[in-house]
Amino acid sequence: LLALTILGSNSAIPAFGRNPTAQLLQTEECSFLIDCGEGTQTQLARYKLRNSKLSYIFISHLHGDHYFGLIGLLTSMSLLNRTQELHVYGPEPLGKIIEIQLEAGEVSLNYPLHFHPLKQEGIICQTGKMEIQCFKMQHRIECWGFLFKEIKNPRSVDTAKAKTYEIPLAFYEQLKRGENYIHKDGRIIQNAEVTTAAPKARSYAYCADTLYDENIANKIKGADLIYHESTYLKEEQQKAFQRYHSTTIQAANIAKIAETKQLIIGHFSSKYEKLEAFLAEAKEVFENTTLAVEGSCYKI
Amino acid sequence: LLALTILGSNSAIPAFGRNPTAQLLQTEECSFLIDCGEGTQTQLARYKLRNSKLSYIFISHLHGDHYFGLIGLLTSMSLLNRTQELHVYGPEPLGKIIEIQLEAGEVSLNYPLHFHPLKQEGIICQTGKMEIQCFKMQHRIECWGFLFKEIKNPRSVDTAKAKTYEIPLAFYEQLKRGENYIHKDGRIIQNAEVTTAAPKARSYAYCADTLYDENIANKIKGADLIYHESTYLKEEQQKAFQRYHSTTIQAANIAKIAETKQLIIGHFSSKYEKLEAFLAEAKEVFENTTLAVEGSCYKI
Repeated sequence: LLALTILGSNSAIPAFGRNPTAQLLQTEECSFLIDCGEGTQTQLARYKLRNSKLSYIFISHLHGDHYFGLIGLLTSMSLLNRTQELHVYGPEPLGKIIEIQLEAGEVSLNYPLHFHPLKQEGIICQTGKMEIQCFKMQHRIECWGFLFKEIKNPRSVDTAKAKTYEIPLAFYEQLKRGENYIHKDGRIIQNAEVTTAAPKARSYAYCADTLYDENIANKIKGADLIYHESTYLKEEQQKAFQRYHSTTIQAANIAKIAETKQLIIGHFSSKYEKLEAFLAEAKEVFENTTLAVEGSCYKI
Repeated sequence: LLALTILGSNSAIPAFGRNPTAQLLQTEECSFLIDCGEGTQTQLARYKLRNSKLSYIFISHLHGDHYFGLIGLLTSMSLLNRTQELHVYGPEPLGKIIEIQLEAGEVSLNYPLHFHPLKQEGIICQTGKMEIQCFKMQHRIECWGFLFKEIKNPRSVDTAKAKTYEIPLAFYEQLKRGENYIHKDGRIIQNAEVTTAAPKARSYAYCADTLYDENIANKIKGADLIYHESTYLKEEQQKAFQRYHSTTIQAANIAKIAETKQLIIGHFSSKYEKLEAFLAEAKEVFENTTLAVEGSCYKI
């Protein structure tokens, strides 16, 4: 299981029934919440997404539409008797913002909360099966994107065949890593003869609020699924630039350069009620585009 | 016009479609928002209540279900180009909580925001037509109730009659204040002969999270409408006490002692889906009780 559910798709203010940004990435092991606009706890409940598997929260930047729902979610989980630890990653001032609000309410959370300030690009955490990297977006304030990659499993050994070739058990770990086996008499057993590759490691890239920047495409190259903000239609490219946001065409260009399989666009400006034009424009550049629709779930 | 709209009626966490606490008191002159749980900006929009007349916000205490929606509302009003000033009253740490979040987002509001920390019981502000007092609730942390009173208009002079009695124009201000007029020859003109009283000044008392405390009833005596929290049914009186909350019976007792005309109860615990028992129990003690139902509007 690797599935993404859109919880909020709007920018700046809630409008036309669209909530501010939040997404949930689910694996069998645990869930990852990406951004947490106001109302996210209600959205999680609406789509019957349980908080019990939620172990990591990533906040891209400290504009309210990306994090004003965090403190409510954190305190509600405590009221609902959560006990397992939770990790929150985000720009450094977020730690203080959480702390000052817990203090003011004299709230002590029921579970261990670990805040990790984001400092530089690279791997920020590893779970058993996933590795998460952060990378910089080009926004008006400090802003991060997140790349979620499955940790590639080792090759699996066909033990029957390996026995036939008289490969000792002690060498199986090397086989899993892809090495050939060489018999004392010099016979070489090709690794592919006795092992099969694990399924391709899947990945999801979340590109938060940003100017168009092709460097981002290179950082997420080959991701199976990409979300990229598209606050404006192409006709508003100038406004997008002034406000450190992207257009449909720009988001689709990033998807194309990154050679992804599928693009989701979202963070729609509140001035647009209808979104058909967003889809049509992005598809001109990158055919396999979809709109971030709240409640939609994308299997990766 | 003096009308109260319920925007949220639940305690602690959103549940059963009920939002955390918020209420809007509207007058012709301006509107007053009382508490501002998460999602209040969405609730204001849902009930088509315009923010343009909202000039005062009162936060009772710093538990999240009473103020986590404030920062979102403040920043959204700025994004929507509000320019008129706004006054926020609440416990002292709220000022810093707002400030640190504006700073983190590098947000400068489009309008003047004045924060007034609550320090002692008494009058905290006066508009042209209303006077607002705060008074202490008995909660686990610092918590305030608010009393909204119309400023009583002067008596109005029946100028035709006043002329008949040969009362000079210069004395009209004294007539409005209720004084009798004494002619030089000693004839006394009773004030009531030439003036009529202004309509009774109306009032609304908001009693936020609290233990049962009869002192509160005395502070709001005679208020036309009272809201009092009723987190639990009467069978949970012990739990209510431990958690610094009130029951149906206790809320109704306050209404009875305060000799109000109407009581609204709310802040229902998330453990109750159905609320009929709340109404039935409160009515045993105070007949004219209603439940805080979101979207309901009470004319005072």
